[in-house]
Amino acid sequence: MKIARFAYNGAVHEAVYRDEQLWVGRTAYDPDDVMWLPPVDARGSTAIGVALGYADHAEELGLDVPDYPILFHKMPHTFIGHRAHIRRPDVEYMHYEGELVAVIGRACRHVTEDDALDYVMGYTIGNECTVRDFVGNYYRPPVKAKGFDTFGPLGPVLVTADELDPTDLTIRTTVNGELRQEGHTANLRHSVAALIAYITEFMTLQPGDMLWTGTPKGISHIHAGDVIQVTIDGIGTLENTVTAGGNP
Amino acid sequence: MKIARFAYNGAVHEAVYRDEQLWVGRTAYDPDDVMWLPPVDARGSTAIGVALGYADHAEELGLDVPDYPILFHKMPHTFIGHRAHIRRPDVEYMHYEGELVAVIGRACRHVTEDDALDYVMGYTIGNECTVRDFVGNYYRPPVKAKGFDTFGPLGPVLVTADELDPTDLTIRTTVNGELRQEGHTANLRHSVAALIAYITEFMTLQPGDMLWTGTPKGISHIHAGDVIQVTIDGIGTLENTVTAGGNP
Repeated sequence: MKIARFAYNGAVHEAVYRDEQLWVGRTAYDPDDVMWLPPVDARGSTAIGVALGYADHAEELGLDVPDYPILFHKMPHTFIGHRAHIRRPDVEYMHYEGELVAVIGRACRHVTEDDALDYVMGYTIGNECTVRDFVGNYYRPPVKAKGFDTFGPLGPVLVTADELDPTDLTIRTTVNGELRQEGHTANLRHSVAALIAYITEFMTLQPGDMLWTGTPKGISHIHAGDVIQVTIDGIGTLENTVTAGGNP
Repeated sequence: MKIARFAYNGAVHEAVYRDEQLWVGRTAYDPDDVMWLPPVDARGSTAIGVALGYADHAEELGLDVPDYPILFHKMPHTFIGHRAHIRRPDVEYMHYEGELVAVIGRACRHVTEDDALDYVMGYTIGNECTVRDFVGNYYRPPVKAKGFDTFGPLGPVLVTADELDPTDLTIRTTVNGELRQEGHTANLRHSVAALIAYITEFMTLQPGDMLWTGTPKGISHIHAGDVIQVTIDGIGTLENTVTAGGNP
């Protein structure tokens, strides 16, 4: 099942996406008539990102990476839905990061890797926007680099966990139709299951919490006017346009 | 005005703390009969911490620090109230960090330092618990070091902004009654106003968001059974006991 959230006529709706329509009970909404929201209500949810989740991305940045997962936090104010605008600050180097996002369905702590996927509600697509200027030559990313308003496009839908194998997904990112990233989740340094096991060693994950699993190689500059599409087969395509935004 | 939140008889209450009683309208609750909660409802709030907010603390760690504020994120699942137990994982070096916490009252972006304090609802006390083992010799702290369950005691009350000058507060931390930290907010590398100006250059702060402003020198090991008290004159004393907890 594909779940979406959208705003229409002054209210927020949760819908099932089927046959290219958004179904709220027996009422169908045209996807072109609504404002898409992130499929997860981000208020009160904690989103943990993985930096350098793919070895080939660490290589393109020339960074040495420890074996354990490098975690950071993606703040809730960054999340926007499908088709919303990414506001580009006036910086040197801003880039997209197409990635698989796992959404937790049940609270969990001290979960084994074997059991971990039982706690996943579903999967969606994230575009984990980053300003490279502020990162420097170190593997722990700073809050500011990942934390500008609108830097977390998410969607278009959440696919329930029964319908996807998170170890067998291809991720493609295009900019203005040109392919820039093509990776496969089999090449994650730490699988979704391994990440859940690692994280729940020290903290409780709650329903609605998210794991942004990392991006494969192929990052590049983006500018105002660019259209970014991130596609994962079985989920869909998350599309967002970059506009000139605030200051750094 | 001093605001508190507590749980009693299966419900959460917001109260005014006055004459050593918790007032909900005209009903007074004895502070010893209730379960204190963080004075800020942390669900949906973003808490930004400042690492190495005081130069003397950076010195005791032997770390070089850039001039700008070093930010990290304190995750909502870490927050517990006054008198709750801090669960100590089985690690080498865990410590307290007594500090001033500013709570945002109105949404703000691109705020000047001169105007910044107009957006503060009030102030409370935080004990920003940290496992040193996972930090390493770098100024950006990792998520795990600050992110264990119960690592964010907060309270006992929030004092409204009209009653406190955040540049003139003494912070004292004791362990089992012995003074370990004594610092003054005049020595913050970046004042509350400067932090709000810096942060709102790139993100919108929302009502309920928090700034954990950093801790002065004097960190030291804590162990199961220790009683940690952080006192800021004009706010009160946040007390929490350490217990043996989960694994790292």
